[in-house]
Amino acid sequence: METFDRLESQVRSYIRAFPTVFLRSLGAKLWDRQGREYIDFFSGAGTLNYGHNNPRFKKSLIEYLQGDGIVHSLDMATEAKERFLEKLEEVVFRPRGLEYRVQFTGPTGTNAVEAALKAARKATGRRQVLFFCNGFHGMTLGALAVTGNALNRAGAGVSLQDALPLPFDGELGPDVDTLDYLEAQLENPGRGYELPAAAILETVQAEGGVKVARVPWLQRLERLLKRHGILLIVDDIQVGCGRTGDFFSFEQAGLSPDFVCLSKSLSGFGLPMSIVLIKPDLDSWRPGEHSGTFRGNNLAFVTASEALTYWQDDNLTKAVDRNSRTMRRRLLELAQRSLPAAAEVRGRGMIMGLDVGDPALVFRVCREAFQRGLIIESAGPSGEVLKLLPPLTIDSHELESGLSRIEECFDAAAMQESSSATAPAQGLG
Amino acid sequence: METFDRLESQVRSYIRAFPTVFLRSLGAKLWDRQGREYIDFFSGAGTLNYGHNNPRFKKSLIEYLQGDGIVHSLDMATEAKERFLEKLEEVVFRPRGLEYRVQFTGPTGTNAVEAALKAARKATGRRQVLFFCNGFHGMTLGALAVTGNALNRAGAGVSLQDALPLPFDGELGPDVDTLDYLEAQLENPGRGYELPAAAILETVQAEGGVKVARVPWLQRLERLLKRHGILLIVDDIQVGCGRTGDFFSFEQAGLSPDFVCLSKSLSGFGLPMSIVLIKPDLDSWRPGEHSGTFRGNNLAFVTASEALTYWQDDNLTKAVDRNSRTMRRRLLELAQRSLPAAAEVRGRGMIMGLDVGDPALVFRVCREAFQRGLIIESAGPSGEVLKLLPPLTIDSHELESGLSRIEECFDAAAMQESSSATAPAQGLG
Amino acid sequence: METFDRLESQVRSYIRAFPTVFLRSLGAKLWDRQGREYIDFFSGAGTLNYGHNNPRFKKSLIEYLQGDGIVHSLDMATEAKERFLEKLEEVVFRPRGLEYRVQFTGPTGTNAVEAALKAARKATGRRQVLFFCNGFHGMTLGALAVTGNALNRAGAGVSLQDALPLPFDGELGPDVDTLDYLEAQLENPGRGYELPAAAILETVQAEGGVKVARVPWLQRLERLLKRHGILLIVDDIQVGCGRTGDFFSFEQAGLSPDFVCLSKSLSGFGLPMSIVLIKPDLDSWRPGEHSGTFRGNNLAFVTASEALTYWQDDNLTKAVDRNSRTMRRRLLELAQRSLPAAAEVRGRGMIMGLDVGDPALVFRVCREAFQRGLIIESAGPSGEVLKLLPPLTIDSHELESGLSRIEECFDAAAMQESSSATAPAQGLG
Amino acid sequence: METFDRLESQVRSYIRAFPTVFLRSLGAKLWDRQGREYIDFFSGAGTLNYGHNNPRFKKSLIEYLQGDGIVHSLDMATEAKERFLEKLEEVVFRPRGLEYRVQFTGPTGTNAVEAALKAARKATGRRQVLFFCNGFHGMTLGALAVTGNALNRAGAGVSLQDALPLPFDGELGPDVDTLDYLEAQLENPGRGYELPAAAILETVQAEGGVKVARVPWLQRLERLLKRHGILLIVDDIQVGCGRTGDFFSFEQAGLSPDFVCLSKSLSGFGLPMSIVLIKPDLDSWRPGEHSGTFRGNNLAFVTASEALTYWQDDNLTKAVDRNSRTMRRRLLELAQRSLPAAAEVRGRGMIMGLDVGDPALVFRVCREAFQRGLIIESAGPSGEVLKLLPPLTIDSHELESGLSRIEECFDAAAMQESSSATAPAQGLG
Repeated sequence: METFDRLESQVRSYIRAFPTVFLRSLGAKLWDRQGREYIDFFSGAGTLNYGHNNPRFKKSLIEYLQGDGIVHSLDMATEAKERFLEKLEEVVFRPRGLEYRVQFTGPTGTNAVEAALKAARKATGRRQVLFFCNGFHGMTLGALAVTGNALNRAGAGVSLQDALPLPFDGELGPDVDTLDYLEAQLENPGRGYELPAAAILETVQAEGGVKVARVPWLQRLERLLKRHGILLIVDDIQVGCGRTGDFFSFEQAGLSPDFVCLSKSLSGFGLPMSIVLIKPDLDSWRPGEHSGTFRGNNLAFVTASEALTYWQDDNLTKAVDRNSRTMRRRLLELAQRSLPAAAEVRGRGMIMGLDVGDPALVFRVCREAFQRGLIIESAGPSGEVLKLLPPLTIDSHELESGLSRIEECFDAAAMQESSSATAPAQGLG
Repeated sequence: METFDRLESQVRSYIRAFPTVFLRSLGAKLWDRQGREYIDFFSGAGTLNYGHNNPRFKKSLIEYLQGDGIVHSLDMATEAKERFLEKLEEVVFRPRGLEYRVQFTGPTGTNAVEAALKAARKATGRRQVLFFCNGFHGMTLGALAVTGNALNRAGAGVSLQDALPLPFDGELGPDVDTLDYLEAQLENPGRGYELPAAAILETVQAEGGVKVARVPWLQRLERLLKRHGILLIVDDIQVGCGRTGDFFSFEQAGLSPDFVCLSKSLSGFGLPMSIVLIKPDLDSWRPGEHSGTFRGNNLAFVTASEALTYWQDDNLTKAVDRNSRTMRRRLLELAQRSLPAAAEVRGRGMIMGLDVGDPALVFRVCREAFQRGLIIESAGPSGEVLKLLPPLTIDSHELESGLSRIEECFDAAAMQESSSATAPAQGLG
Repeated sequence: METFDRLESQVRSYIRAFPTVFLRSLGAKLWDRQGREYIDFFSGAGTLNYGHNNPRFKKSLIEYLQGDGIVHSLDMATEAKERFLEKLEEVVFRPRGLEYRVQFTGPTGTNAVEAALKAARKATGRRQVLFFCNGFHGMTLGALAVTGNALNRAGAGVSLQDALPLPFDGELGPDVDTLDYLEAQLENPGRGYELPAAAILETVQAEGGVKVARVPWLQRLERLLKRHGILLIVDDIQVGCGRTGDFFSFEQAGLSPDFVCLSKSLSGFGLPMSIVLIKPDLDSWRPGEHSGTFRGNNLAFVTASEALTYWQDDNLTKAVDRNSRTMRRRLLELAQRSLPAAAEVRGRGMIMGLDVGDPALVFRVCREAFQRGLIIESAGPSGEVLKLLPPLTIDSHELESGLSRIEECFDAAAMQESSSATAPAQGLG
Repeated sequence: METFDRLESQVRSYIRAFPTVFLRSLGAKLWDRQGREYIDFFSGAGTLNYGHNNPRFKKSLIEYLQGDGIVHSLDMATEAKERFLEKLEEVVFRPRGLEYRVQFTGPTGTNAVEAALKAARKATGRRQVLFFCNGFHGMTLGALAVTGNALNRAGAGVSLQDALPLPFDGELGPDVDTLDYLEAQLENPGRGYELPAAAILETVQAEGGVKVARVPWLQRLERLLKRHGILLIVDDIQVGCGRTGDFFSFEQAGLSPDFVCLSKSLSGFGLPMSIVLIKPDLDSWRPGEHSGTFRGNNLAFVTASEALTYWQDDNLTKAVDRNSRTMRRRLLELAQRSLPAAAEVRGRGMIMGLDVGDPALVFRVCREAFQRGLIIESAGPSGEVLKLLPPLTIDSHELESGLSRIEECFDAAAMQESSSATAPAQGLG
């Protein structure tokens, strides 16, 4: 690791949690330079829903390269981009009765969020944006302003403006509907902020600690916003692309967001790619008003088109459902057997969190897991939640094996003296 | 183009200037679906310095894929990343006597700029950042605040804060040293803004109209900033990676920037990749304080390592020098022969601008060029400059051929009636 | 009124509600040019607690003028200022065991608020300030940022920054302790805003609709803030100087604010004067850091010293208590007799509000009152509350007479057809 | 002074420069508690243009009080206010062919500036405001954002936003027309800031060091702004009301500002009062949108109406002119006789500055002057300028006597060892 210590900035993060040099990967597994094998319950923070080096995607990619297909195209037209758009329309929009325009942004989640915020402000002529405590939307100043994480916000070095935090569903306990507060505010002209342009929402807060908004809460939120002319942006960067079982995480609640941000698993192969879906009547951009060099990452378009074929039938949805039940069952058993009563299992589809209320314990479990060949990370404001994000395509044997290792790690961590070490705060964009 | 009209957002831009579907590319050439061939004098806005589908890079890439190398790794360690860091140290840092830490940011130029701005604010505890009129640094709110372009700034929808514009070299004519103004300000406690954290600089403003800062101006700027403890960020995203002949654009002036932003041609293959170089004593990041999903685009690391081999000797520098002289000579002849006296040829290395002071004419020339199989774009606050950005590796025959087509276009455009059409404003990040 | 229509700006406000030219005033009464007499239940929005032209104060003032006492002194030392400071220490600080430094600010409430906000930010090195929905603190940008009123905020023309609204006591109904929300936020690092410098509070929101914070809520708020190192600013501009019976409105709850803003009735005579009380260890100002031409309004110091003599015994407190009971009794009778069950009587001491939930009705009542020789105004986010602010020194006959007129107005207003006219939004600074 | 040390905040300022307790004043003189007499060359920082306790004004004031005239009236109509408005129209507007609406703001200069900034932003729908280095406009956040002074800006504790500093006339030496820079910016869409709402200007920067903008520069500025639809706000708070000889300081250049801020000497008696003059077509305020408790300081209206009688003929203008010539002559003689060649005499009318380029010397001169019975202060970004602001009504004997004392002070200061003490930074609002 000497090269990284000498040459990489202090900002490096996951390399500290997983201190080895990785070489190869396939499906749900990675191998490091020493030949050690790891099961991946992290999936690039939700980027590898279809597994590492998915052979079908890889084949298309190599053929494209061998044929000297266009690799980089700014936002010019290429056949690879055209194919992606048509596939998206055919496989995603049409069956769901959706109508959206697609904006290709710089290929980071934060850039998609910035574009959506701009578009919402432009469409309404308003400035304030509502966001939710513990939400995570990115590291650039516009997206950071709507991100809850204290460490990341402190990194801004300036005041973050034109954004207003709200309590997420469940924030004040199961008995308080936090939308009562928003409703009272919106009906009160003396609320202390101008009418917002938009609210930005994750239906499941992943970095925020695997917090799942309940369906009635989501539906009431959408109604409330609509009544006041506030646009709804769903950030489906981490929990879209099938993570919750449906392609979009908001399908279960039947939402119809004005803007949807997608990235991470969109390309299916871990390649940088981000888009914003915009309702046609809100597509008020002027040409070139939001631009970016790498909007045209054609290798990503090639694999993204392949990835969409997974959504031509419901096999993947069924697999997610099956795996989800396995994960929940095993975690509940673990909690019941080994953890204090306050521990909580949360999640939807194949994002699951085990909130043990103890960041130091979660830190030890993750460290122990790495020793035992399992890549897994913490989440939550203080790192008090163990977050499970296996590839959706993991086979059941690997899944059970990973879950067993987690159990072993808790046993091992329980036996260690409670270390004073605390988990380093971390986040993704 | 019907698919794009139906499904892509109004924000699309270059597709309007180059309305065809591209299929294949190699070196300095592209081919569209109709089999038409184009010479590329745009190079992905400076992203394809080594040409399209450079065969050596492509070979490495395919081998890496075939071996199931890690594709996506957040910021964990991989062999591909390690090799890039070592190569960068060996080929770039060591021969130039530089010492930098490398921050891998989200793979867009704007993300590198945001990271550098944060790091400078953090290192100084100050907020204001100086930037230069007509400068271009990106589309996310932090980078946009230091970008001059009016169309792009208007897209923010909120006030852009904590940034202060200054006149670039030559802004007030050749006889005014615009740094007199900055010097007077910095020495005056009543100047109306707090001591800045940093200044962000392009040594050649590319989008801003191919404006070249003179060496003494650059050196005085660095001295002025140093005297007042203001950090220097060089944004070498468009004109670094050899565009001016040296690897960094600031080598000619002997600058020693505190932060350097690199992207675009860094991966060499058009793949998304961005880094910030940070002087070790200014690397005050906390782990994970600035993060991002696609920091670990290993395919880009593979090709970037290949691209750095170009810098093991001075052959490329010599080629750039040769081509630069050809371009300048031909443009000066063209200006003398066909253009008003006020027309100006500007540039360094292989970024050249022909400022004809007439956006409508430049627009017609670009449109005409597309008809004649040449991809070329305008630059400047109003699009009044024709910008030449051929691949550095273009062969001399292709270069001369492209230059001849430009001459033909001016002749053709002169014969057209002056259209009232004006160039759509455009920009890259 | 022709002169005012021709020459005064559209911004004029109360002149529209009370369209006559006033000439003379004494105690609780005013007379206009036509010789009509009015009882004053508005008291200059709380500025005339000791009545108009209080003879004792007037005598001192005229003597001071006749002796060519210093009138204007910036912040130099004068005998009039010295006497005020000593009297304040003797009559207010010492008996209450308080220790404060006095900052003389520009003589507007908003200037005192701006000074307190700056001082709190300076003392903590932090930027965010918490404030309460429907709170009112002033019209200059810093104070406006912590003011709830929508009309006033819209007047800013820029985004109001570095301020965060919270629900006031009772905002979500009597059964929700709104501090649960604040407590949850402060304990959550992912709350979406940096640790605040201070919270600014009115113990009774006057403009906000005569909303009275309950004592336990105030005490819990103070404890919560203290636990997180957040400073407490009490804005006692409208309800300090005896309006609630005690000199400070927060005495009842036993608070010990870090900063106290006083103005309005401080001079006792309606003369412009404002101060900030600062706990000595938080007095981190540099000399001249916050300045202002009219900090040394010596005529106000003369009358303010006189006004403080009212606090040498508890006669005024007793009178306020007596009058308060009368006001509450009569309003409750009125509500019971003539108003819907939802109508609510609120208030403390001699600020009383009758919330009838119907801005148009309140508007008609105020208009009718003016016709019947009673000056009274509305309050609340939509003007739905009738606000009673008689001078503290009003005699019982005048008080009863004013209350009777209110009853008559409700009867008259009820008989009028419900006008579609709505009350113009108004506010004071 | 013990009372002040014990009870007044550290922010106190002029009391440190003039450490005595003042008792009485008349015309151009003050007397302290020890009976010492002082000539006033400071005039409350320009507030006492008509001298202390002007007998004519005093008489009106006492009569008004004795008749129980309205003292405090929010913004209701009173006869005193009506009389002031009519007098202003008759004596000021009509003879100059001006048409303005009058906004009565909170009675501080900074409040008038905040109101004008809001009104300009509202009228244009734009946000940015241009201001000039070393300009001084006030201490509240909106006005502070357009103030140059570093000490005062640092007091904000937050970033000051939506304001852009420009070089004042002469800032870059006599040979550079600083408007070249502004003109280049305004014509360049890539200038890095949106089209501004307004520019705020002092024609003579008083606090900034008695810097006088030349007439052609002022006229070119007005033309430039007009051409781009940018509104002009003249802050005539310190140098209006006759200080330069004319009632408005901009009459000499024939400007026609869109907004004019007046305060300080407006009431004539040192009483707090501020107004904004607004061109009728820009009076887009909604009723009550900018409010304030002390807008109706009727005692100030009474004396302000008296003060306006000075402008019914040109006697005062002539006196100012006479005194101005005396001051300039004596200062030039002093400079020639005793000061380095770089020393500069600047000013217009009866605001004169002697820039000796040495803050420590100016500090010693002011301290020495106080010992010799002369009240005088420094100005300029570092306090390097001695500022002379005698009452306009000073008699020639007093004026000559004050000027002689200045000469003596320079002699005395020259003889003292150069102290290391530096002048405390100070400012007024």
